[in-house]
Amino acid sequence: MKFKIAILGAGNVAWHLAPALENAGHEITEVYARDIEKAVKITERLYSAVPKADLDFSESEAEIFILAVKDSAIPEVADAVILPEECILVHTSGAIPLDILGYSSATYIGIFYPLQSFTMGKKMDISDVPFLIESEDQDTLRKLKKLGNSLSQMVYVVRSKDRKAIHVAAVFASNFSNHMIRIAEEIMRRQGLDFEMLKPLIIETISKSLQIGAKNAQTGPAIREDYETLEEHHRFLNYNEQLAEIYRLISQDIIDS
Amino acid sequence: MKFKIAILGAGNVAWHLAPALENAGHEITEVYARDIEKAVKITERLYSAVPKADLDFSESEAEIFILAVKDSAIPEVADAVILPEECILVHTSGAIPLDILGYSSATYIGIFYPLQSFTMGKKMDISDVPFLIESEDQDTLRKLKKLGNSLSQMVYVVRSKDRKAIHVAAVFASNFSNHMIRIAEEIMRRQGLDFEMLKPLIIETISKSLQIGAKNAQTGPAIREDYETLEEHHRFLNYNEQLAEIYRLISQDIIDS
Repeated sequence: MKFKIAILGAGNVAWHLAPALENAGHEITEVYARDIEKAVKITERLYSAVPKADLDFSESEAEIFILAVKDSAIPEVADAVILPEECILVHTSGAIPLDILGYSSATYIGIFYPLQSFTMGKKMDISDVPFLIESEDQDTLRKLKKLGNSLSQMVYVVRSKDRKAIHVAAVFASNFSNHMIRIAEEIMRRQGLDFEMLKPLIIETISKSLQIGAKNAQTGPAIREDYETLEEHHRFLNYNEQLAEIYRLISQDIIDS
Repeated sequence: MKFKIAILGAGNVAWHLAPALENAGHEITEVYARDIEKAVKITERLYSAVPKADLDFSESEAEIFILAVKDSAIPEVADAVILPEECILVHTSGAIPLDILGYSSATYIGIFYPLQSFTMGKKMDISDVPFLIESEDQDTLRKLKKLGNSLSQMVYVVRSKDRKAIHVAAVFASNFSNHMIRIAEEIMRRQGLDFEMLKPLIIETISKSLQIGAKNAQTGPAIREDYETLEEHHRFLNYNEQLAEIYRLISQDIIDS
């Protein structure tokens, strides 16, 4: 099943998704960005898509409209876009509820959320990206499933309630684990030490965690309940009260769980 | 420079280190474990090392004694071991000070700390493992450097004060980032969701973090100062007060830094 698709947005998600959709055999009809130059940066990577800086899509041949703008711009663009009849409008956000698209001119609405962190210019194998899809209309859901399966091995139908849980879990697994590395970088820099020496440990830990589960992979003073070391580390961190409290709280949670 | 080496301990570190030392051309003379069976498990992997369950090494030909027991057992074993004259005793811990070996019968003492998380039975390329070495005796330090360089590309001479900073940084980078993944696992399990869908995101995040630095790699609601989503996530977590507090505190630290 091949679709004609318009992309609204020209950021990281659009940059990765648009060529991947073409590679999967779909046709990208238009790419919209408020700044036409940005739309051109995407259409340049495509066969015949037209860049657009206005939101009048009443003459578009697309059947699926993928709204890939930043979360805060979703309501505004969804409300303003003029869509042809019988089309599907989806957004690509993990955090925004489905019903925010309910005020748009779309006949059918849904979510087509790639659970991945995209960086413009950095290659990404879309077939490894999980797509979380949602719609209250069964035929729309079926089409989004087809669309997802044409790109990726991992397509999940997810309810809004679960999507929120997944988003919270993703914040811990991605943003917060990254921040732990950030703190480690700062501790090393403050002492004039080379952060490179920690990289092999980080790679090994995360790889073990994903292989055998984070519970089984855990090591260190907290899981050993080595209170002497915990106390010493806490004292070491007393140059930054917030950091010391983070150390205390996470150690406690490791002990408790 | 090739050494004759005895290993005291038969855990994860000994399991990896002993064969790697042989591969690098050194000779392992003995392996000690309180339980002889455990010592045999290591010597079986070696050419001619003798398993021992007693700590009388007065007749040993080894010049370097590597104490690779768990942290809490270091003082006890260091005090009890009977060493030949003019030998070097090192421990392999990131958390234990050097001077704890000062009560031993060793002429020279030092630290030979592999900054990595070892799992028995799981292959590990020792040449990628950073070795952090320390000694107050210059000749000992020189020998430990040679020993480290025979195994690994990454050998760092580190003072005790810095070793503590590195250990604290390693707790954040390894144990705490792993615990963030653990929390994510729990959130998904509680909701009956498949944790697999988060793995590509974790791999991409950590790989990006190590490539461009954690500060530049950060994404998510906290760095965007998206207080609405932060508030919603905090509410979502109110089934576990400690978890909600961890969410609040780390988000605040991301915003502050």
